[in-house]
Amino acid sequence: MNKILVLRLGHRIERDKRVSTHVGLVARAFNADGIIYSGEFDNNLINSIKKVIEKWGGPFLVSYTPDWKREIKNLRDKGFVIIHLTMYGINLPDVIDSIKSEFFDKKKNLVVVVGSEKVPRDLYEIADYNVAIGNQPHSEIAALAVFLDWLFEGKELLKTFNNAKIRIIPSARGKKVVVKNSKSSNT
Amino acid sequence: MNKILVLRLGHRIERDKRVSTHVGLVARAFNADGIIYSGEFDNNLINSIKKVIEKWGGPFLVSYTPDWKREIKNLRDKGFVIIHLTMYGINLPDVIDSIKSEFFDKKKNLVVVVGSEKVPRDLYEIADYNVAIGNQPHSEIAALAVFLDWLFEGKELLKTFNNAKIRIIPSARGKKVVVKNSKSSNT
Repeated sequence: MNKILVLRLGHRIERDKRVSTHVGLVARAFNADGIIYSGEFDNNLINSIKKVIEKWGGPFLVSYTPDWKREIKNLRDKGFVIIHLTMYGINLPDVIDSIKSEFFDKKKNLVVVVGSEKVPRDLYEIADYNVAIGNQPHSEIAALAVFLDWLFEGKELLKTFNNAKIRIIPSARGKKVVVKNSKSSNT
Repeated sequence: MNKILVLRLGHRIERDKRVSTHVGLVARAFNADGIIYSGEFDNNLINSIKKVIEKWGGPFLVSYTPDWKREIKNLRDKGFVIIHLTMYGINLPDVIDSIKSEFFDKKKNLVVVVGSEKVPRDLYEIADYNVAIGNQPHSEIAALAVFLDWLFEGKELLKTFNNAKIRIIPSARGKKVVVKNSKSSNT
C-alpha cells in the first residue's frame, strides 16, 4: 500500500508549538501515515502527538529530521512524489487530478511539505508540485486538511484507528464517548 | 445576500495568538463574511487580520465581543442558524445537506462557532447543529476550512477580493505576484 508522509519545515519551539501540533494531528486525522518534523528539535511536540496516538489509536509515524533537504532527497530516491503546499502554487482544483493519478493509479508514495513563516526558495524547485489551497494567505493547517480531504474525497472523515482507548459516538448534543473495557459515557 | 460569520470562543492572548490568527485568515480565505473574537480582548490579533484585509482585499468584518452567549442570542434573534464545530458532533457527511439547505435554499444566515481548549457546555445546547469534521482530535483551524470548503464545494478557492493591493498569479515554480499600480514581479 502506498503511503503519505507530511514534512513540517522550520519548527520553532516557542512560536510554533501549537501550530505544529495541529499540523501533526491533522495529518493523522486526515489519513496521512506519518509526520516528520524539521527545524528545532522539540521533544514535547513529538510526545504530544504520541500521546494522542496512544489514546486515540494509530498506526501513525512521528519522527524528526535535522536536515529537511536530505530527507526530501532520500524520499525522492525512494520514489516519493514531492508536493509542496504554498499560496503561490497552482490552485488545487487545477492540479488535484494529476496528484490523484500519481497516488491512486501509479501507486506512488507522496510527501506533503508544509512550511512555517519562511520557506527556503529551493523547495519551489525541488517540489514536483507546488500546490495552492486557494491563492490567499491563511494557514498551513487548513491547507493540509483541505488537500488531504480533496485527495481522499471526504472518506478520511470516516476513518477508524487501531488500538484506540477512546472513541467518540457522534452525537447531536453533548459528548458521547466509549472508553475501551468500559461502558459508554454521556457527559 | 445571506451571510456567514465565524465566532471564535475563548481566545487567550499568549497561548492562542497564532491559532486565532489562522482562524481569522481561514474565515476570510474560505468565503465567510467576518469573524467575531471572544475571550481576552487582543488588539494585536484584530490588527493583524485588518492588515491582511488592507493588503489582500475584502470585504471582511473583524470584531470582538466580551460576551459570546449574548452575541449568539442576538444572532439567533436575527435569524442566524448556529453551527458549532466539535469533534463530538454529527459527522460532516451526515449533516452537510441539511446545512446547505438552510444556507442556499432557505437563505438563512449562519454563525459558525469554533472553540479553543475548553468549550462551555451550554454551547452544545444552544447550537442548532453540533458538527464534527471527523470524530478525531485535530484542529479548529482545519475544521473551519473543511466545513466551509464542503459548504461552498471548492468554489471558495477561486474567490477574488476587492481593493487588493497584491494578488498572486498561480505558478508551477516560485512566486509570481501582481502589485497594484505596478508590473508583475517574479521572485
